Amino acid sequence: MWNRNVETFLGCEASFDEASIVLFGAPFDSTTSYRPGARFASRAMRQESYGLETYSPYQGRDLADYTVFDSGDLELPFGDPIKPLRMIRTRTEAILENDKLPFLIGGEHLVTLGAVEAVFAKYPDLHIIHFDAHADLREEYLGNPLSHACVIRRCWDLLGDDRISQFGIRSGDRTEFDWSRENRHVSTQLFNFDGLEQTLEAIGDKPVYLTVDLDVLDPSIFPGTGTPEAGGVSFMDLLDALLLVIGQSNVVGCDVTELAPSLDPSGVSTAVACKVVREMLLALG
Amino acid sequence: MWNRNVETFLGCEASFDEASIVLFGAPFDSTTSYRPGARFASRAMRQESYGLETYSPYQGRDLADYTVFDSGDLELPFGDPIKPLRMIRTRTEAILENDKLPFLIGGEHLVTLGAVEAVFAKYPDLHIIHFDAHADLREEYLGNPLSHACVIRRCWDLLGDDRISQFGIRSGDRTEFDWSRENRHVSTQLFNFDGLEQTLEAIGDKPVYLTVDLDVLDPSIFPGTGTPEAGGVSFMDLLDALLLVIGQSNVVGCDVTELAPSLDPSGVSTAVACKVVREMLLALG
Amino acid sequence: MWNRNVETFLGCEASFDEASIVLFGAPFDSTTSYRPGARFASRAMRQESYGLETYSPYQGRDLADYTVFDSGDLELPFGDPIKPLRMIRTRTEAILENDKLPFLIGGEHLVTLGAVEAVFAKYPDLHIIHFDAHADLREEYLGNPLSHACVIRRCWDLLGDDRISQFGIRSGDRTEFDWSRENRHVSTQLFNFDGLEQTLEAIGDKPVYLTVDLDVLDPSIFPGTGTPEAGGVSFMDLLDALLLVIGQSNVVGCDVTELAPSLDPSGVSTAVACKVVREMLLALG
Amino acid sequence: MWNRNVETFLGCEASFDEASIVLFGAPFDSTTSYRPGARFASRAMRQESYGLETYSPYQGRDLADYTVFDSGDLELPFGDPIKPLRMIRTRTEAILENDKLPFLIGGEHLVTLGAVEAVFAKYPDLHIIHFDAHADLREEYLGNPLSHACVIRRCWDLLGDDRISQFGIRSGDRTEFDWSRENRHVSTQLFNFDGLEQTLEAIGDKPVYLTVDLDVLDPSIFPGTGTPEAGGVSFMDLLDALLLVIGQSNVVGCDVTELAPSLDPSGVSTAVACKVVREMLLALG
Amino acid sequence: MWNRNVETFLGCEASFDEASIVLFGAPFDSTTSYRPGARFASRAMRQESYGLETYSPYQGRDLADYTVFDSGDLELPFGDPIKPLRMIRTRTEAILENDKLPFLIGGEHLVTLGAVEAVFAKYPDLHIIHFDAHADLREEYLGNPLSHACVIRRCWDLLGDDRISQFGIRSGDRTEFDWSRENRHVSTQLFNFDGLEQTLEAIGDKPVYLTVDLDVLDPSIFPGTGTPEAGGVSFMDLLDALLLVIGQSNVVGCDVTELAPSLDPSGVSTAVACKVVREMLLALG
Amino acid sequence: MWNRNVETFLGCEASFDEASIVLFGAPFDSTTSYRPGARFASRAMRQESYGLETYSPYQGRDLADYTVFDSGDLELPFGDPIKPLRMIRTRTEAILENDKLPFLIGGEHLVTLGAVEAVFAKYPDLHIIHFDAHADLREEYLGNPLSHACVIRRCWDLLGDDRISQFGIRSGDRTEFDWSRENRHVSTQLFNFDGLEQTLEAIGDKPVYLTVDLDVLDPSIFPGTGTPEAGGVSFMDLLDALLLVIGQSNVVGCDVTELAPSLDPSGVSTAVACKVVREMLLALG
Repeated sequence: MWNRNVETFLGCEASFDEASIVLFGAPFDSTTSYRPGARFASRAMRQESYGLETYSPYQGRDLADYTVFDSGDLELPFGDPIKPLRMIRTRTEAILENDKLPFLIGGEHLVTLGAVEAVFAKYPDLHIIHFDAHADLREEYLGNPLSHACVIRRCWDLLGDDRISQFGIRSGDRTEFDWSRENRHVSTQLFNFDGLEQTLEAIGDKPVYLTVDLDVLDPSIFPGTGTPEAGGVSFMDLLDALLLVIGQSNVVGCDVTELAPSLDPSGVSTAVACKVVREMLLALG
Repeated sequence: MWNRNVETFLGCEASFDEASIVLFGAPFDSTTSYRPGARFASRAMRQESYGLETYSPYQGRDLADYTVFDSGDLELPFGDPIKPLRMIRTRTEAILENDKLPFLIGGEHLVTLGAVEAVFAKYPDLHIIHFDAHADLREEYLGNPLSHACVIRRCWDLLGDDRISQFGIRSGDRTEFDWSRENRHVSTQLFNFDGLEQTLEAIGDKPVYLTVDLDVLDPSIFPGTGTPEAGGVSFMDLLDALLLVIGQSNVVGCDVTELAPSLDPSGVSTAVACKVVREMLLALG
Repeated sequence: MWNRNVETFLGCEASFDEASIVLFGAPFDSTTSYRPGARFASRAMRQESYGLETYSPYQGRDLADYTVFDSGDLELPFGDPIKPLRMIRTRTEAILENDKLPFLIGGEHLVTLGAVEAVFAKYPDLHIIHFDAHADLREEYLGNPLSHACVIRRCWDLLGDDRISQFGIRSGDRTEFDWSRENRHVSTQLFNFDGLEQTLEAIGDKPVYLTVDLDVLDPSIFPGTGTPEAGGVSFMDLLDALLLVIGQSNVVGCDVTELAPSLDPSGVSTAVACKVVREMLLALG
Repeated sequence: MWNRNVETFLGCEASFDEASIVLFGAPFDSTTSYRPGARFASRAMRQESYGLETYSPYQGRDLADYTVFDSGDLELPFGDPIKPLRMIRTRTEAILENDKLPFLIGGEHLVTLGAVEAVFAKYPDLHIIHFDAHADLREEYLGNPLSHACVIRRCWDLLGDDRISQFGIRSGDRTEFDWSRENRHVSTQLFNFDGLEQTLEAIGDKPVYLTVDLDVLDPSIFPGTGTPEAGGVSFMDLLDALLLVIGQSNVVGCDVTELAPSLDPSGVSTAVACKVVREMLLALG
Repeated sequence: MWNRNVETFLGCEASFDEASIVLFGAPFDSTTSYRPGARFASRAMRQESYGLETYSPYQGRDLADYTVFDSGDLELPFGDPIKPLRMIRTRTEAILENDKLPFLIGGEHLVTLGAVEAVFAKYPDLHIIHFDAHADLREEYLGNPLSHACVIRRCWDLLGDDRISQFGIRSGDRTEFDWSRENRHVSTQLFNFDGLEQTLEAIGDKPVYLTVDLDVLDPSIFPGTGTPEAGGVSFMDLLDALLLVIGQSNVVGCDVTELAPSLDPSGVSTAVACKVVREMLLALG
Repeated sequence: MWNRNVETFLGCEASFDEASIVLFGAPFDSTTSYRPGARFASRAMRQESYGLETYSPYQGRDLADYTVFDSGDLELPFGDPIKPLRMIRTRTEAILENDKLPFLIGGEHLVTLGAVEAVFAKYPDLHIIHFDAHADLREEYLGNPLSHACVIRRCWDLLGDDRISQFGIRSGDRTEFDWSRENRHVSTQLFNFDGLEQTLEAIGDKPVYLTVDLDVLDPSIFPGTGTPEAGGVSFMDLLDALLLVIGQSNVVGCDVTELAPSLDPSGVSTAVACKVVREMLLALG
């Protein structure tokens, strides 16, 4: 009766030691160029997750049978992203050192960079599967190389050519698409998930980092994000793609980013984000 | 000129005596466990209905040619649901005694129980067709057997096995799905309306109560509800299913529940609910 | 550094002289019978457009390569629509006199009438392609012949039979549909864009005015409009139809109407409207 | 049990014949130049009024002891104000002919003109007491003499000099204040109610029309209005002023205008408007 | 690093054993008759409290120097209030048995009854100081004696005459005010805190339960509540009154109720509620 | 007719050369630790300003008689504040070099630092008058010395002791208040403007930078800000204080910060901010 108030994501009740997956939140959105608010995502998702069931009729599995630890949110400073990225990297490293899978909840998409640095340090043959509406391949944005609009380009700086595959992309600068095509730096699938299976086959059992910018979803089902782009994928499309990636490849780290809860006063976007995380946890566990 | 202000649902201008269908509202949501607000549905729908036309291009029919009486809202106490359920039952009985069809507008889904009790008393061979995102089959919820999450289980207490068919279900406790399958207590179709025609054929001309929890719709088109669940049916899917049920079976009572108008500040959810009711009235009339 | 603050629609940086297309806003919604707010559309779209890219991966084109002039908003009085319609007509005439294409951003749909009067004066063999949820064919509405609900009927008064083709229509008074069918006054395609190609073939290279009431879109993706109607077309459906019309016919004027930005606090509707305008500009340019 | 749903303002249950006061709504806001929405005021107030008590601890009176008839809303066309103003005048005349007091609920402030025309026709020695943030004394606004910004000037056209006293005014064009001072056309008290008692003494028992633009209130307590102006009066200031006018002069007609309910999602503004009407009814009755 | 995510009210970091005050939340609002939402108050306040400082310039004290334990929220069923009230009573009793002060965060005002039952059992000479806009003295409401509108009457059933003093009251049924005056059942100060000092002097050092319905505040500063009443007290008025009660009497239990966070999208109401709790904790500690 | 759409703050129509005051916006809020959104302030204020009059009945002056140039918004990168602060400094310097008065519209309060650096370089005997709810005197915040919570401390780093006077302060860390008192680093007036006249007398005709964090206002009238603090000053209090400072001292630069428009959906906060700027311009001009 006299325990302190503990709020974790639904069903993530394991201790750190017994857990195979460790959730953590990175409430940072300082480089968001349009509508900020992704900083509130992880806390909103924890609260909203109690509107969900632990059981998934999609997979016939129940979070009650899994061991996930929710390690809470990092306390990140706002403004310059260098320190927050370092803190995200440090937390990810600590999870990996204990041979657990890091599951990052953003925040804006730039937070992915901190996690990828840590995962790449452990797995030098890492591949990235990237679901997003935006290519995020700019060399810099408004003079800033550490921006959400550059995050996948920064990941490429680390991993190099032929390691990153994007799906669902439907917005970007002309130079991003041109650069992507050049020398096959990055593989960019416009609008949908066509070619995902072949990509996974080619990757085989090499380690994969899965990064999900939730704005890959159509804004009809996910309006609560800073830069909504019409013409996105449906929830069932995304669910199928996620189960495919997790089912057929060796996912060693992942994240879900860019929910901005207050932009959708109906609460639907937050509920959708929770369901995406539940299904990913059930597939990974 | 000196008639009082009378606000009914669009086109429901008949007197009680001439009407074949009687609408009534049950503004109750006290057992809602997540986001309340369904209590405001019937009043919001009456106002919003004037943004609709009386004519439906889907059915080529016009409410102006029908005789529906809107008997207004019950004045229900909040808190303990026993008394409100009794009041709903009494109103439904009075409508049935006059050989008219009761059409209940919730409120939370628990209100269905009061109407089903009355309809079942008149039609002991009653079947229920249930459209919903949630199974609502719990034995009790947070210690409470009279909860929106238990309403179909309570209906089963009355009707027994093989009488209830659910469609569109995509959320529930593992125990609900397990129980449903056992001894074929209830027939549960996940995610969509597959098998609806066969179900209706099997029912034949036996009396049917049709209960529509509007959260069966995808939250992209119906965000204004307490517990939105991604992956739902489209408006056209629902419309087709409704016209199928009403066209091919003997519907003797029905309801539409779980609109929470203020959760969708755009007003779209309320407009959708009104259109559902208009189409149902036109098909029933 | 010391130029004044100039806010135009994204990428519409040409001077009037060099431009081939001239945008202008008509912030008028006084005859809106349900929820007003379309008066704020053009200003909201200019601001929101900076969340978009100038490049379209759909068409592989970039607004940076085009010459569009944004001539700002007309300063229209509210109330009686006669004067605002005259001001819209005058502005359209001036654009046409300079052999540029007028692109009107509403405002409510009635603003179309002012533009059509001017375009029809220059092109007496004008055809209208009309995308909308509502037929807008009433002889009068609440005693008023100059209402958004009558705008296409008023256009027919000018152009006569067999010149107007509507698509996506899913709401209207019974009398509107009856009138439309009589003597083939107007061609009305319910619900979708079926028959659009044949219509365009029949029109051939005759001049076309394209009027887009954005509520033709499903309210799941476009809730920010005064009278949302479930069962609409998807963003990709609309995009395909727009590119078809612009690609295969001789569009000499166009408009986009009925965004009411404040009805959709998520901002998605405004973003969608901007994307529609960007794609139309790229196809027209 | 089978009466139709009847929604009147709280406690206004009298029949027309027995009533001494007759409420009616004028849902018109087509000349609103900034943020529309006042058209929804009367309906929102009827619904919200049920959150109030019929008893006032301020006056120690109870609406249950009074006879007020709520005659509902006029069905006004939108756009050109000429016809709506005529309909308001006609309704007001009919109430006056039956020797009852007309109580108009706007709508935008222009609706006052229709009521004042009728009241002035019956009482040629009419005075107007006007509470507002805005002077509303323009000769025309955006070329339009029938605008909410001109309504008191139009009343002055009827009544002439020395008949209109404004209080609480804190916004206007320089020309309005200059004109007001010239030849003492109108008496304008800036910011507050100073001098109200003397004004009432001077008027004596001559007939008074009381027009209340609710934006006279500080936007802290009344944000739900199209053009909020900081520095307004408090609710208690307004209540005291209203009771003073009604208690010490011969009010023969009145109105309450410019609530725009959807601009204040908390509902406070609508609740305040209801309380203002309740107190006015209790004082008038 | 690997502790679970723990969210307490700002600065309430003590263990149960070392604490002198124990906070707990009662997320219940099933009897709310108008706009529900108070169930979300305690969670919203914990999150929002991190926008506050632990230091108060009003009292020159810092929560960092105090020992408060936040025991989290009770998991209450919705609907019938009997079981929730019992759970609140049990929690309060457990706190009192350990000689700590119970501090309840509602929820609707009815939750006070559970706490008062426990406190009265320990302190039979208990007095209640009650700050509220509403008298809450009804014998029953809509046939229900266990309603938020009856909670102080239910407390009187326990404590009897001359033990309850209300301040700030500005709304109620005529029968409530009449009953209050009869035989001096309850002392009711309308509108403000006049007489509070004398009341406290008369009570002397007898035990006091302090119940604060936050709608005693003016809705200008506290719009986020189900039934806002214009004409309330200012934040500084309330703060002064709270410090007076806590400073000059023997408060043995207290509560803060009726914040409905989602009714105020600006977040101000939640911030105000947090500040009220911070100041009460600092004064009590 | 063919000028581009030019949107400036109301009445700021002068050219740069003829202007004595130059407005500019700094849409930056990356270090905001609680609710971001101040980046949208300058654009929202330009739009909203057209709901105001150019004439002020408070001062009897009209912006039409003044020469103010609105130089638009800086295009600032988000994230690390170093570059944005440099850009603000550069713009301010350019204005000062032309002997015009810089008037900065934030953004978060940190933007003040860039302007103060430039003004201090020109006026080494600069004093700062600071109106705010928060002391903003931290040495660092979450490890970051360039944070909105440290901005006045950074100004003190430049100006040194006895040069900065704060008014209206009602929130801060204990260490801030302790530091402020030590050696009279900064003069901090809690809660109100007491002592402002004496402060101005002491400053005499030395140059003054006036920085206004709008959250000094009570959140009842200004809810649209990231960290609202109850117990603030009224609009009339602030207006009087502003006119006092500008009237009695030598203001050589100023700013208005921390409006976050989307946090107040009623639009009142933006309207208040516009009125503050209008009155400041009229007093400065």
